[in-house]
Amino acid sequence: MGFMLERKDLPDLSLGAAFLGTGGGGDTYIGRLMLERVMEEGRRVEIVHLAEVGDGDYVIPTGMMGAPTCLIEKIPRGDETALSLRRLEAFLGVRATCTMPAEAGGMNSTVPLIVGARLGLPVVDADGMGRAFPNMYQVTFHVHGVPGTPMAITDEHGDTVIVTACDNFKMEWISRGITIRMGGCAHTAEYPMDGPTVRRAAIGGTLGVCLALGKAIREANEQHRDPFDRLVGALRETPYRHGRVLWTGKVVEVYRRTTEGFARGWVQLRDTEGSGETLEVLIQNENLVARVGTRVLCSVPDLVCILDRETAEPITTEALRYGQQVKVIGVAAPPLLRTPEALEVFGPRAFGIDLDFVPLEESEP
Amino acid sequence: MGFMLERKDLPDLSLGAAFLGTGGGGDTYIGRLMLERVMEEGRRVEIVHLAEVGDGDYVIPTGMMGAPTCLIEKIPRGDETALSLRRLEAFLGVRATCTMPAEAGGMNSTVPLIVGARLGLPVVDADGMGRAFPNMYQVTFHVHGVPGTPMAITDEHGDTVIVTACDNFKMEWISRGITIRMGGCAHTAEYPMDGPTVRRAAIGGTLGVCLALGKAIREANEQHRDPFDRLVGALRETPYRHGRVLWTGKVVEVYRRTTEGFARGWVQLRDTEGSGETLEVLIQNENLVARVGTRVLCSVPDLVCILDRETAEPITTEALRYGQQVKVIGVAAPPLLRTPEALEVFGPRAFGIDLDFVPLEESEP
Repeated sequence: MGFMLERKDLPDLSLGAAFLGTGGGGDTYIGRLMLERVMEEGRRVEIVHLAEVGDGDYVIPTGMMGAPTCLIEKIPRGDETALSLRRLEAFLGVRATCTMPAEAGGMNSTVPLIVGARLGLPVVDADGMGRAFPNMYQVTFHVHGVPGTPMAITDEHGDTVIVTACDNFKMEWISRGITIRMGGCAHTAEYPMDGPTVRRAAIGGTLGVCLALGKAIREANEQHRDPFDRLVGALRETPYRHGRVLWTGKVVEVYRRTTEGFARGWVQLRDTEGSGETLEVLIQNENLVARVGTRVLCSVPDLVCILDRETAEPITTEALRYGQQVKVIGVAAPPLLRTPEALEVFGPRAFGIDLDFVPLEESEP
Repeated sequence: MGFMLERKDLPDLSLGAAFLGTGGGGDTYIGRLMLERVMEEGRRVEIVHLAEVGDGDYVIPTGMMGAPTCLIEKIPRGDETALSLRRLEAFLGVRATCTMPAEAGGMNSTVPLIVGARLGLPVVDADGMGRAFPNMYQVTFHVHGVPGTPMAITDEHGDTVIVTACDNFKMEWISRGITIRMGGCAHTAEYPMDGPTVRRAAIGGTLGVCLALGKAIREANEQHRDPFDRLVGALRETPYRHGRVLWTGKVVEVYRRTTEGFARGWVQLRDTEGSGETLEVLIQNENLVARVGTRVLCSVPDLVCILDRETAEPITTEALRYGQQVKVIGVAAPPLLRTPEALEVFGPRAFGIDLDFVPLEESEP
């Protein structure tokens, strides 16, 4: 059976979602504040498990798209994404019975919870990434052949655009252009699906994973234990199974530009444990690849998470700055993201990075 | 009463539309070929006068938007714009009883005729510019407070976007971004209006003007008479009333870039009649301002038309090139474009050009 999300769960949810965001998906602190506010207004957030989604259900995932660098300069009012869902419903002539995240990482974990609370819709504990990815077609729904459109995009002024694209790549291309014109980030409802399609194409349990990972970090800090040990331990109980500290170092250089609707760039982390080597992490909204020279330590779809060295608090790519003391954790992606078909969509080459994907478990420790 | 457009009218229509296009609105030769083809298929083009539009009519203007430099590299198949109209009808839940041009200049004079022929809809002999302008809000409909959206935009692949903007400036901004992503030009249906609104907000008779001006140029050439004299004479019988040859010269420099979804730049015309001075014409899709140094000879919304020096064949901005021998004609805009409210939308400052509008009649000959 599903459950009601409690206000006390929000710090853990926010922390875990930031971890799965691998630097992207939007600042979870903003999402947490927005969610606290709707809960303070007396609205409730009902979560349903993926297996509970019925054949008669109709699910419309919701979220925000754009560059996280823009999101932190353009804080949402709170009702924009619900408008996207309503506008898509009106266009389709249907009513959604549930919403859900398309991406479980970052603020996009909490945005559908706000939509659900506002509209009285249950939220499916599942997503289409098991993390955050920058492009609209980088979801398991797409890998399973689900059309992403019709899609609704709204901005804070109430401008609404309905996109019906001939494929999900054109969906990304056109909707990104619209998002740029809307100021670099916008509110979306897309990949409308019936119940059986959701059960087949989604990754279940990712909200639960956020809660568990957030709890591990929080409790370790409360108990003055090593949060990285706890995180690696907690990951073992999830579909991710495998996580490992890849690097301990200091941010010595950040190159970041908001371009073509994305935050792109790289960060360099000087090793502070003796070797003096420099780890470079390539960024497109999210951390994509961690490498030392030509040696790849971790690459998409596996997760590259940059965390505060003491507290294991995740650092988003837009918040990276010189001097931060960090640890980098690599996490194995869920198996659904590592099939040959999935790697075409989620692997390094899908981002224009000329590397083969090497599973974290097989890279040198 | 209205009339049926005949195939024999097309050369005059095409020539006159190119003249009113003031360099923009798309290459009319392409529009003429497309229209000839639908007529060869046995389809008919019915024209109705603006005064004949009934209270119960529902009019959806159609056209193409984008940079003319892209249009000549991406020739339409022929059915795309009709799809835009159909998609907008479906979104609005209405059926159009007529279509019409939003812009009477360039290829956009003929595009609605093709839509009308394909869908069996009469075409209103009217438009919202009396010429061509680059921006979606630069229409008399906008000056009369008509919302431009909901608007449908389609491309040659069948991708469709429905834009509902909070005002017509956002409509332009968002739809331009979509057009860029669709390859620099796209097919649109916008400013849906009921009959009384069309009668109030449109400029009537512009298709007829195209036919008359085209006929004047053609007949002068057939009779070996001066086509410029004929043109100026023909203009006197139209709402434009006043036209004058401003310059005779040779193209000595063209600067043209396709940027932000527009063809922007300028052309320099060296006087070949003795003075040796250089006329500069500023361009945003259309010719906007003709000046010699700081002396303005003609400025928007008045028409700056660059024509072949011998045949008076209009030269579109994308076809300008070094060495062309040309004459430039200035034409007074219809009074509806010269009111103080209209000048805010159509005057030089609306294009970022720091000049007051000076009516052609008042500029030094």
